[in-house]
Amino acid sequence: MIRSEGIPKIMKALKIYGPGDLRYVETPVPEIDEDEVLVKVIGTGICAGDVKIIDGAQMFWGGGVLPKWVSEPVTLGHEFTGRVVAIGDNARKKYGLNLGDMAVAEQIIPCGECPFCMNGEHWMCVQADIYGSKKEIAEGSMAEYIKFYKNSRIYKVPESIPEKNTAMIEPLSCAVHTIERADIKFKDVVVVAGLGPIGLCDLQLAKLKNPRLVIGIDVRENRLNLGKEYGADYVFNPRDCDVVEEIKKLTNGLGCDVYIHCSGHSEGVLQGLKMVRSHGKYVEFSVFMNDTAVDWSIIGDRKELDVIGAHISGIEGYPVAIHMLDKKIIDVDKIITHDFKMEDYKEAFQIAKDGRQSIKVVIRS
Amino acid sequence: MIRSEGIPKIMKALKIYGPGDLRYVETPVPEIDEDEVLVKVIGTGICAGDVKIIDGAQMFWGGGVLPKWVSEPVTLGHEFTGRVVAIGDNARKKYGLNLGDMAVAEQIIPCGECPFCMNGEHWMCVQADIYGSKKEIAEGSMAEYIKFYKNSRIYKVPESIPEKNTAMIEPLSCAVHTIERADIKFKDVVVVAGLGPIGLCDLQLAKLKNPRLVIGIDVRENRLNLGKEYGADYVFNPRDCDVVEEIKKLTNGLGCDVYIHCSGHSEGVLQGLKMVRSHGKYVEFSVFMNDTAVDWSIIGDRKELDVIGAHISGIEGYPVAIHMLDKKIIDVDKIITHDFKMEDYKEAFQIAKDGRQSIKVVIRS
Amino acid sequence: MIRSEGIPKIMKALKIYGPGDLRYVETPVPEIDEDEVLVKVIGTGICAGDVKIIDGAQMFWGGGVLPKWVSEPVTLGHEFTGRVVAIGDNARKKYGLNLGDMAVAEQIIPCGECPFCMNGEHWMCVQADIYGSKKEIAEGSMAEYIKFYKNSRIYKVPESIPEKNTAMIEPLSCAVHTIERADIKFKDVVVVAGLGPIGLCDLQLAKLKNPRLVIGIDVRENRLNLGKEYGADYVFNPRDCDVVEEIKKLTNGLGCDVYIHCSGHSEGVLQGLKMVRSHGKYVEFSVFMNDTAVDWSIIGDRKELDVIGAHISGIEGYPVAIHMLDKKIIDVDKIITHDFKMEDYKEAFQIAKDGRQSIKVVIRS
Amino acid sequence: MIRSEGIPKIMKALKIYGPGDLRYVETPVPEIDEDEVLVKVIGTGICAGDVKIIDGAQMFWGGGVLPKWVSEPVTLGHEFTGRVVAIGDNARKKYGLNLGDMAVAEQIIPCGECPFCMNGEHWMCVQADIYGSKKEIAEGSMAEYIKFYKNSRIYKVPESIPEKNTAMIEPLSCAVHTIERADIKFKDVVVVAGLGPIGLCDLQLAKLKNPRLVIGIDVRENRLNLGKEYGADYVFNPRDCDVVEEIKKLTNGLGCDVYIHCSGHSEGVLQGLKMVRSHGKYVEFSVFMNDTAVDWSIIGDRKELDVIGAHISGIEGYPVAIHMLDKKIIDVDKIITHDFKMEDYKEAFQIAKDGRQSIKVVIRS
Repeated sequence: MIRSEGIPKIMKALKIYGPGDLRYVETPVPEIDEDEVLVKVIGTGICAGDVKIIDGAQMFWGGGVLPKWVSEPVTLGHEFTGRVVAIGDNARKKYGLNLGDMAVAEQIIPCGECPFCMNGEHWMCVQADIYGSKKEIAEGSMAEYIKFYKNSRIYKVPESIPEKNTAMIEPLSCAVHTIERADIKFKDVVVVAGLGPIGLCDLQLAKLKNPRLVIGIDVRENRLNLGKEYGADYVFNPRDCDVVEEIKKLTNGLGCDVYIHCSGHSEGVLQGLKMVRSHGKYVEFSVFMNDTAVDWSIIGDRKELDVIGAHISGIEGYPVAIHMLDKKIIDVDKIITHDFKMEDYKEAFQIAKDGRQSIKVVIRS
Repeated sequence: MIRSEGIPKIMKALKIYGPGDLRYVETPVPEIDEDEVLVKVIGTGICAGDVKIIDGAQMFWGGGVLPKWVSEPVTLGHEFTGRVVAIGDNARKKYGLNLGDMAVAEQIIPCGECPFCMNGEHWMCVQADIYGSKKEIAEGSMAEYIKFYKNSRIYKVPESIPEKNTAMIEPLSCAVHTIERADIKFKDVVVVAGLGPIGLCDLQLAKLKNPRLVIGIDVRENRLNLGKEYGADYVFNPRDCDVVEEIKKLTNGLGCDVYIHCSGHSEGVLQGLKMVRSHGKYVEFSVFMNDTAVDWSIIGDRKELDVIGAHISGIEGYPVAIHMLDKKIIDVDKIITHDFKMEDYKEAFQIAKDGRQSIKVVIRS
Repeated sequence: MIRSEGIPKIMKALKIYGPGDLRYVETPVPEIDEDEVLVKVIGTGICAGDVKIIDGAQMFWGGGVLPKWVSEPVTLGHEFTGRVVAIGDNARKKYGLNLGDMAVAEQIIPCGECPFCMNGEHWMCVQADIYGSKKEIAEGSMAEYIKFYKNSRIYKVPESIPEKNTAMIEPLSCAVHTIERADIKFKDVVVVAGLGPIGLCDLQLAKLKNPRLVIGIDVRENRLNLGKEYGADYVFNPRDCDVVEEIKKLTNGLGCDVYIHCSGHSEGVLQGLKMVRSHGKYVEFSVFMNDTAVDWSIIGDRKELDVIGAHISGIEGYPVAIHMLDKKIIDVDKIITHDFKMEDYKEAFQIAKDGRQSIKVVIRS
Repeated sequence: MIRSEGIPKIMKALKIYGPGDLRYVETPVPEIDEDEVLVKVIGTGICAGDVKIIDGAQMFWGGGVLPKWVSEPVTLGHEFTGRVVAIGDNARKKYGLNLGDMAVAEQIIPCGECPFCMNGEHWMCVQADIYGSKKEIAEGSMAEYIKFYKNSRIYKVPESIPEKNTAMIEPLSCAVHTIERADIKFKDVVVVAGLGPIGLCDLQLAKLKNPRLVIGIDVRENRLNLGKEYGADYVFNPRDCDVVEEIKKLTNGLGCDVYIHCSGHSEGVLQGLKMVRSHGKYVEFSVFMNDTAVDWSIIGDRKELDVIGAHISGIEGYPVAIHMLDKKIIDVDKIITHDFKMEDYKEAFQIAKDGRQSIKVVIRS
């Protein structure tokens, strides 16, 4: 094992203890063994999911059809990259990493033995830890240091990617998986609804498939403007127009071929089901605060839809995301609008939640 | 054109005039041209959809995400077969039909010119008439006679299929399409929820794919018994047990691979989303009375599901259904529990809706 | 019906009478009815298939596993666009075309009644005429006029597309279908082998899907240079290097994910089977002169490949091709290297076949 | 670790030293560690591949598009089951196996680290050992004992499966994978060509999907008869009839929907390409002795086929095969026609190769 000088025993971290109960605390710096890696976190993006953990969403705390997900108390944070400060000999050999290298681990730590892991669906691992929420062992990255485990899927991050952008690797990897699930064709009219950080990545990635039209929807003008700048053929604000009608006008009344939903709001589900054409594809990536009430007849007997879920980054998300940031095929400069010191986390979360001026808010470690 | 003797000018029919307003009326017998066929209806099955038309479901009368569907007043009935009593010369040549032959037309009359028809998705035709509900021209089969149109997809029905069973061709064709959409593999555990006429066909068809297990769910014991008789490896009644737990017990806690929903009840959606495994398939065929409130996070960020809709009979439904009834691969004898004269329609609809003793109720013409 | 002035009764045309027997002859200008369209041909591209018809390939004249395809004598030519000079009233209403408009019909005239047509696979129609080869009724476009039939799939061509480029609509539409069949993902390394007119379109279209790498292979430097100009990340000439080794070097020894073959040479099949990775996709579009001898074990028990054929333009080829030329998303200016008057057809075919200086050769009508 | 009494140090085995050079030799009994299992082999089926290894096929020894595969000298045999005679503590815990239990390991030992293993395609592992041919470490089962490795995929075999049938688990698992790749629908006409042990399993499995017709083809009457007994709707012998014509007669001249090839003969490729319909599916499982010369135009520009390879047993083969033998859904009693003591291997291989009286020949250990 090789270790940098001066790694402390204790560090600061942001831990969730229950709905509404986020604390800035001291916690031990993780120990590693010969198969593991310790990185100094560069920065961590605040995910809409993090906000909803604090706000008590049933998706995280259980309720309705959803079991409890969070194992509190746990350090938040899964959108991270770090620099290697200690690395076991086996890990060094396996990944070719050295002290000082930038490196990222997937947000999920698959068990390697469950039916999903055995079938190559590691991102659905039933036993998995996910950094920052579903931990047995894996504390998140809103801390000074974070540990990569033997089962982690670890990637070296090239120096061509500016440090300040590395927190976007994880959200971009999720967008890559979402867009591959959407299976976009040249003939398609594609709508991306919800232009947060992932939606804006989805939109750029959808453009990279060169379908007939890519259309963005959001209620905030700053995000619509950025969508336009990122190549949206049209953007619409549901507060200003009937978005379903606008899409129908652009498609001879048929509706869009592909609807990609990442707004997290029920209204986005309803609009999507209305604007997607019969035999169309509705891709759901959102993290919701609430139930959505809708007549499921529209999925089956009326439109024969394919409603396709997308969960984190799939098989291909991370390597493709890193490649695209390396080659500057995707822009994230304008998506990251704010960064804060960890101690200013209250303001950071406040601005992230409000979202009128911010898009992605990063907490520096 | 050739015509049988004695076709009247006026016939009796069951017409819907609005929610709750079903009338037994006199109406003209349709005229046909050289591309068309007139059949004397043998019998018409009462579909759960017919009951919901009468009950005013938003799926048919509009509301929520759903536009109005029914073009009232219209004669009900789309589950039918008839015997040819008149046929145009072009139709005779095209279909090889003669007077007296049993024949069925698909429930949908595609326009032949819309994008769906041009792409071979005729069953999604945007302009389509559907017998018994969405008519411009096509009155349903709860009448003495019904007409097949130039654009109808018409099939000869072999005499090996007993007349009394022919009303099941349409529901079976829908089940065929549903099961092909489900894409069942040998390794799968398949749940069919809602053992009405289509669910019982789904269950038999699922068995014909020979997956690891086929499991039926319903709240009525007569239907569970018939499911068992049709080869279900297990049947469960949600009134007697926690069906989600039962399925998990049979699948090492993972959940079923494929969930086929045809109960029409919100509870079936919720149970399905809970019992289907991550990366599983949920196939929706139901006609609902109500909205279903559920957290859509489970589709995307929790389970990455494929929620697959199925609408009527697809490309392959009718020929496969006729083949299977001809070869006695599928049983419908026990599904058809009641038949009534048309004038006794009130009792027929009452018994169909109640469903405790009945499964499929047929109205003889 | 409306007709332009001055349409003659007799025109010049290039007809094939048998292998090696191409004649420049007089033939009647077609008559049209109210469902049909007559266009003055702008120009017709010489397809590699046209050259192989003249050269007697078994693909066209029968032999081995292939039945006879050509119905000689027939006017050659299926890569065309024209200007409307006469149009029936029904056709005018259906297509919104007027005298003088540019218009194209698909190269295939589907029957509308065979199983493929009924299933939305019109481009596989078993009864189909194909302009310029498989005619019952449909003489090709190496003539002054050509007729579009009732069953033709007709598209208006916008004036934004220069007349001289319109002969590329058909080849581009084939490339669109090929690339959609290839189902390219962001992570893929894609090889296009054979940079003729369709290969160069394939290459541009593959780039529009933004995979990790697009690589071109050809034995002619002019085509490799153009491939590079069209965005190929690498181009290789099998006369200068071991192309299989080059691809393996770029892929950690694994091989490419997708191999798109349009060279028409057996060597391209063998190279493709060697350079595609296990579980990779090999897409075959070529028209061959000869049999290819290879051990089919490599398809099954060694690499478990998907060998995917592509035939003409599928469902989506023409509208997408026209859209892309209209929006200048695809370049064909540099692909069309030569054009000739029809009377100079001998030189035209000679230069097309030689291919060292030419890429696409057009015969003006 | 627990061990049975009386395991010797030296055992007898059949080793291949080069084409034509099979030797009956003494070799050490493998040692195991705490992650491994030692089984006493019950019996090993002689695979057509084994015969072709001896006969020097380029598929195994290299040539044409195929690199060398065999790492000689190596003990042959990959179709096996054994009884546990020694087991490491980790393996015991992981698999729940005890001394005396029947157990099988997949024929492939995946590396767990290559791109295929990381993506859940372990059966395509590029580094993999395969028992009986591609060994670094893994000697085959034509020996008294065989070792299961840490990376082996190991399954307990229920006692409901007679010992004498257990050598069929591997071939049946390959057939399961082949048939799942074929994706058979109710409407399909399916041809299985080559009714050896795997073809006869393919045929039974194809029947279990209940397509419209299942048809068997072979040149040996004993196998055709067994095909018929196993439920083939028709069987044809190419020595007695024109099989392409027979299939066309049964399909209105269109050809079959799915052609599953496991004859290993070029003639089977040519017949398949001729008899499969346009847009049909050709599934290749064969191990060939020779190249096949055919015009590849038929794959692309003539029929737009999906030619789908199948390699060993995929993800799902072994558990499904064991389930089906356990539940007696598949019969193999009549497929196993001969068994021999190991010392009589010359006669065993002779009879296996001749194949006129034999189907599957087993070598008892």
